[in-house]
Amino acid sequence: MSHVLTLNSGSSSLKFALYPLTGAESLDTLAPRYRGKFSGLNGGKPRLTLKDGEGNPVEVDMGELSERLELPGATERLLGWLDDLPDLSLAAVGHRVVHGGRDYHRPVVLTPEITAALGELESLAPLHQPFCLAPVAPLAERYPELPQVACFDTAFHAEQPEVARWFALPREMTARGLIRYGFHGLSYDYINEVLPQLLGDAPRERVIVAHLGNGASLCAIRHGTSVASTMGFTAIEGMPMGTRSGSLDPGLVLHLIQQEGMSVEEVTELLYKRSGLLGVSGISGDMRELLASPAEEAREAVALYAYRAVREIGSLAAALGGLDQLVFTAGIGERAGPVREAICRGCEWLGLELDPDANRRDASCISTADSRVGAWVIPTDEERMIAWYSSRAVGQA
Amino acid sequence: MSHVLTLNSGSSSLKFALYPLTGAESLDTLAPRYRGKFSGLNGGKPRLTLKDGEGNPVEVDMGELSERLELPGATERLLGWLDDLPDLSLAAVGHRVVHGGRDYHRPVVLTPEITAALGELESLAPLHQPFCLAPVAPLAERYPELPQVACFDTAFHAEQPEVARWFALPREMTARGLIRYGFHGLSYDYINEVLPQLLGDAPRERVIVAHLGNGASLCAIRHGTSVASTMGFTAIEGMPMGTRSGSLDPGLVLHLIQQEGMSVEEVTELLYKRSGLLGVSGISGDMRELLASPAEEAREAVALYAYRAVREIGSLAAALGGLDQLVFTAGIGERAGPVREAICRGCEWLGLELDPDANRRDASCISTADSRVGAWVIPTDEERMIAWYSSRAVGQA
Repeated sequence: MSHVLTLNSGSSSLKFALYPLTGAESLDTLAPRYRGKFSGLNGGKPRLTLKDGEGNPVEVDMGELSERLELPGATERLLGWLDDLPDLSLAAVGHRVVHGGRDYHRPVVLTPEITAALGELESLAPLHQPFCLAPVAPLAERYPELPQVACFDTAFHAEQPEVARWFALPREMTARGLIRYGFHGLSYDYINEVLPQLLGDAPRERVIVAHLGNGASLCAIRHGTSVASTMGFTAIEGMPMGTRSGSLDPGLVLHLIQQEGMSVEEVTELLYKRSGLLGVSGISGDMRELLASPAEEAREAVALYAYRAVREIGSLAAALGGLDQLVFTAGIGERAGPVREAICRGCEWLGLELDPDANRRDASCISTADSRVGAWVIPTDEERMIAWYSSRAVGQA
Repeated sequence: MSHVLTLNSGSSSLKFALYPLTGAESLDTLAPRYRGKFSGLNGGKPRLTLKDGEGNPVEVDMGELSERLELPGATERLLGWLDDLPDLSLAAVGHRVVHGGRDYHRPVVLTPEITAALGELESLAPLHQPFCLAPVAPLAERYPELPQVACFDTAFHAEQPEVARWFALPREMTARGLIRYGFHGLSYDYINEVLPQLLGDAPRERVIVAHLGNGASLCAIRHGTSVASTMGFTAIEGMPMGTRSGSLDPGLVLHLIQQEGMSVEEVTELLYKRSGLLGVSGISGDMRELLASPAEEAREAVALYAYRAVREIGSLAAALGGLDQLVFTAGIGERAGPVREAICRGCEWLGLELDPDANRRDASCISTADSRVGAWVIPTDEERMIAWYSSRAVGQA
């Protein structure tokens, strides 16, 4: 049976999923046969989890998980396992690619030229882009005829107005691509696709989606189109994250280098790895640990996180001219009720009235029936979006 | 007669004013005998303007304005002129000091120890603090008994909650002062003092003041206390300004150094001197020139400026839990009607209804009678605030 393989590879993990195609798919009916993840790659403790279409754990042997496993090795093992799967033919493989730059606004079937062009965007996302593209070559070698589709995290934001994308920098810098691209686009795209069914007749002209995961950003969507996002040129801007600082005074970066004598590498490591929830709490970058901690420092980190989200929501509501619906998604958004509660309390002035019981249950709708602004918890599914785009790109849907 | 001299010295200018004291002053009744300004110092073309209390130009000879004049030279000339003024005794001199750091939350009579401590804050505001303090020593030498009062631009923000002041950085960095201080505090303080008279019974629990001058920031004031401000650790954060970038992705600063090979000095010069309105338009950093220009690039720069103001107002409204009054002040805020109009249009969703005719006239109230949110144009007067604080500090009011 024909399948789409989706790959989502990062600096320390390789997520994959396998979707059977019947030829009559819609985004709704696409359902994975398997979903899996290698974690702890490139230096951590390697681990593999695999689940079937119902979410039940599946025991699988992809070779011994030794002390150290790199991304290419994990890719090799995945492909070896696929070769042995009965009843499998691949119609396409879909890659999540963080950066599409200024030229790639929709999914594209990779050619060697396009892959090379995407590689040149590495300098725009040095911590993400190389990993996204790493599996392309080994796959092309093993399956030369297999269409590989790149699905971009930036693409959903491509229609943003220039005022939202431009920094107040010299024009020539803007012209050569030093702009806000926005990320988490596959997640926003998915939420944007499934939201209408949930909302029914409720107004949805002005929607803010809060993608609060390991990385975190928020996106303002008007009539289904991204008009602004908090994450900009790199994956630092906007919300504080697990270990990333989020927005801060650019003059502070200069101060750390000029006045405090830090190297650029040290500042990069500081802002990507030692800041955010981890830095503020001094305890952990994991929201679950902070919510479980009795420490005052943990409470302060969570409070700062919620406060920044509320400020960003105000800023994005200004871009939208108001707010109809607020959607929470990704790890923290889907499962951290106390964080959602703090954020929703800070949005009461916008007309949002939280239903605390529904919120505690991680219910789909967490606002009261009378709330002028609806609040929602919607699990995101970037893999399904990649599978959908990839199957369409090869004419299978 | 007893007077207070106010000094406001920057990198290229020295503003001064002379306020007679009757001993029964209020902030309202303080009125200057003279106001003057040396501009084009430290490398530009030096110029001196002087006006009397009614705002009429006064011809004055403070020595030839040669090709180049430094701040100390300008201070010398000012003091020489004061010596010759009839009927003058100085009760105090009040200095605008940009940075009070974490310790100075209200005006303070300078001692050598305090002056030295303020000098140590130079690294927090290297482009401003040294100029603020430069006139202190020559004044102390000439008038050893004269009380000199430092009035801080950061002081008005000292009561902000920690969530507003903290970056999501490691705790030890926050603890040693890498926080948002906020600036333009003397301007906000003045507006905050005079606003009640203008508003009468109108609600003023939640106020945003937009100080849009050469530097620009916005401040959220709840019940008379600053709760958040757009300008943070340095004078770059927040709104784009004449030549300063305002907020931008901290990862972009790292990119410019790491990927583009710029030096830290070059990036500093870029973000302070070549960005903002000047960078976006490629024409000028002066809003008057841009508003008068038919060029598309000028229109784009103005549009970006207004858009960023609207986004910041949304973010600050979130900190306040809504908005009752919006105040425009400083050069652009007081005189650039088209900019105010664009910003107010972007705030309609908050309940602000602009009165376009009143706005064109630079009227005091520029919102309609029915507008839920009031909009105001209030000329700021930092000098008067400095004079008021200084006279109080020496027991003269």
